[in-house]
Amino acid sequence: MKDVILGIDIGGTNTKFGFIDRDGIILTQGELPTTEGETVHDFLRILYSEVQNKFKKIEDEAKVIGVGVGAPNGNFYTGTIENAPNLKWHGSVPLVELLQSYFKLPVYLTNDANAAAIGEMIYGGAKNMRNFVVVTLGTGLGSGIVVNGELVYGHDGNAGELGHTLVNVKGSGRVCGCGRRGCLETYVSATGIKRTVYKFLADYTDYSELRGVSFNDLTAEMITQAAKRGDKIAIDCFEYTGKVLGMKLADTVAHLSPEAIFLFGGLVRAEEFLFDPVRYHLEKNLLSIFKGKVKILPSGLGLNNTAVMGAAALAWKELERVPVA
Amino acid sequence: MKDVILGIDIGGTNTKFGFIDRDGIILTQGELPTTEGETVHDFLRILYSEVQNKFKKIEDEAKVIGVGVGAPNGNFYTGTIENAPNLKWHGSVPLVELLQSYFKLPVYLTNDANAAAIGEMIYGGAKNMRNFVVVTLGTGLGSGIVVNGELVYGHDGNAGELGHTLVNVKGSGRVCGCGRRGCLETYVSATGIKRTVYKFLADYTDYSELRGVSFNDLTAEMITQAAKRGDKIAIDCFEYTGKVLGMKLADTVAHLSPEAIFLFGGLVRAEEFLFDPVRYHLEKNLLSIFKGKVKILPSGLGLNNTAVMGAAALAWKELERVPVA
Repeated sequence: MKDVILGIDIGGTNTKFGFIDRDGIILTQGELPTTEGETVHDFLRILYSEVQNKFKKIEDEAKVIGVGVGAPNGNFYTGTIENAPNLKWHGSVPLVELLQSYFKLPVYLTNDANAAAIGEMIYGGAKNMRNFVVVTLGTGLGSGIVVNGELVYGHDGNAGELGHTLVNVKGSGRVCGCGRRGCLETYVSATGIKRTVYKFLADYTDYSELRGVSFNDLTAEMITQAAKRGDKIAIDCFEYTGKVLGMKLADTVAHLSPEAIFLFGGLVRAEEFLFDPVRYHLEKNLLSIFKGKVKILPSGLGLNNTAVMGAAALAWKELERVPVA
Repeated sequence: MKDVILGIDIGGTNTKFGFIDRDGIILTQGELPTTEGETVHDFLRILYSEVQNKFKKIEDEAKVIGVGVGAPNGNFYTGTIENAPNLKWHGSVPLVELLQSYFKLPVYLTNDANAAAIGEMIYGGAKNMRNFVVVTLGTGLGSGIVVNGELVYGHDGNAGELGHTLVNVKGSGRVCGCGRRGCLETYVSATGIKRTVYKFLADYTDYSELRGVSFNDLTAEMITQAAKRGDKIAIDCFEYTGKVLGMKLADTVAHLSPEAIFLFGGLVRAEEFLFDPVRYHLEKNLLSIFKGKVKILPSGLGLNNTAVMGAAALAWKELERVPVA
């Protein structure tokens, strides 16, 4: 019998889960809409039933020893999901307590970006690193910070909100969903680069295949494909996105002096269109003692199932912290 | 016999030392110019002799179990002082190795701001905190960051350079000694507020007692005293300094979610003239989940001997980490 962790990634649209061993092999997996059920209780009942069904396929070879969950606004310390704007469960949801009542196993929760960072440490490109940062580029910009081999939660579990550092300290800049202006994620994220495309289409007169696409229809993937086909507006938008990210990451380096910063999420598919300007503008803005030392790398987890693997990695890490008596 | 640590603070002008017990009591102390001797070897020979002389006063009651050193550009990992611009010893100085050859004891080195942070944790206002930041406001702006109860050194020992985060990401702003522009310490430090005074004296026509003082003669203490006497320019300069610091500390909170940020150094004597705008502009720029949670506090170490106490605290912390076999 092999020990496995049940990793659960609760997203705004879908919830994915998988049984994952210590080497990162997914034995079996499943998926359901996060909108299933009227309440969180209904949803968890359905999730539990799906998980049990999938587990039957591997019950002769695997023993589940814990559950790791990544969810928007998931708080490691309190075990709750707090007012997640993209989930229909409002207020404070005691997710760890609820899942423990089903699974009778240790359950660990954190937000998706922190789970990605732990996944990078356990399964990905940061296996031998003790100081690094993961930046997730999705609808918003999330981040997970590792210092001295431990995730940085801060005193209240809310550390790692690089998406809400300020590109412009003068209170101007793009309006952010958080109610402020000038937050990094309004420039650097799938949504941020869409906003940049529309600004550049307004400011410049170059031909672009993106001129035929409405704001609602435009996706980061379309911008990536356009850049790869040589579309000047699309390339310039990646240049601008990478510039803003590189400049702000110089502040992150000044705080933490990480060995590497991993970029994670769909925008990473743009490869050198994104990485080249990030690296250039980071170096340009670094204090001399940091120059040439900080690697900007794509996530070593690849692009599939990474959130489920990160959630599982969280539980592996916590279970390995305290040796069983 | 009581165990004590020899704490040594190497400053640009003077080097102070003291024998300090676990409760922060300084049994005896001394001081000498850092410029003594031709080479670092000469200096350390003189320092060793002074330390031995002072120790005679307490040799019947105290046993020295380690040495902690705070020095500009002191690197905890390498035990070296690297190219410190304010010291006359150039290049890389293997200070830990040299001091061990004299004292035959464990020697620990870090930079002055990190030493201040450990001092705050061992002797000061952060005794029960596991996540906090210390900002030292001297000639420049230094910082020491504590996460999960451990100092953040980063992968190379250089973490905590908040003085070189960028107030202006567009490559403009005040010229910094580091060769870049717009670094936080060009606005927020004893030198930074002097620069602000001169800018405000140029921009405005208000009467100010500071109009009679040359740039070279002006000190932060004079600006503090002028503010306390109601001088509008001086008060406005503290308001501006506090505003820039508060805004940039919002980024620090977004990274680390600390329980408190301690301000340390001579500018702290301005009390509410500095703390009020820092608190106001920090709160104004915080993401909502952080609002009302982060304390801005004066250092609990007071204003005297704090650097020596921080250096001693470093050694206490390291010696307590590894239990003697």
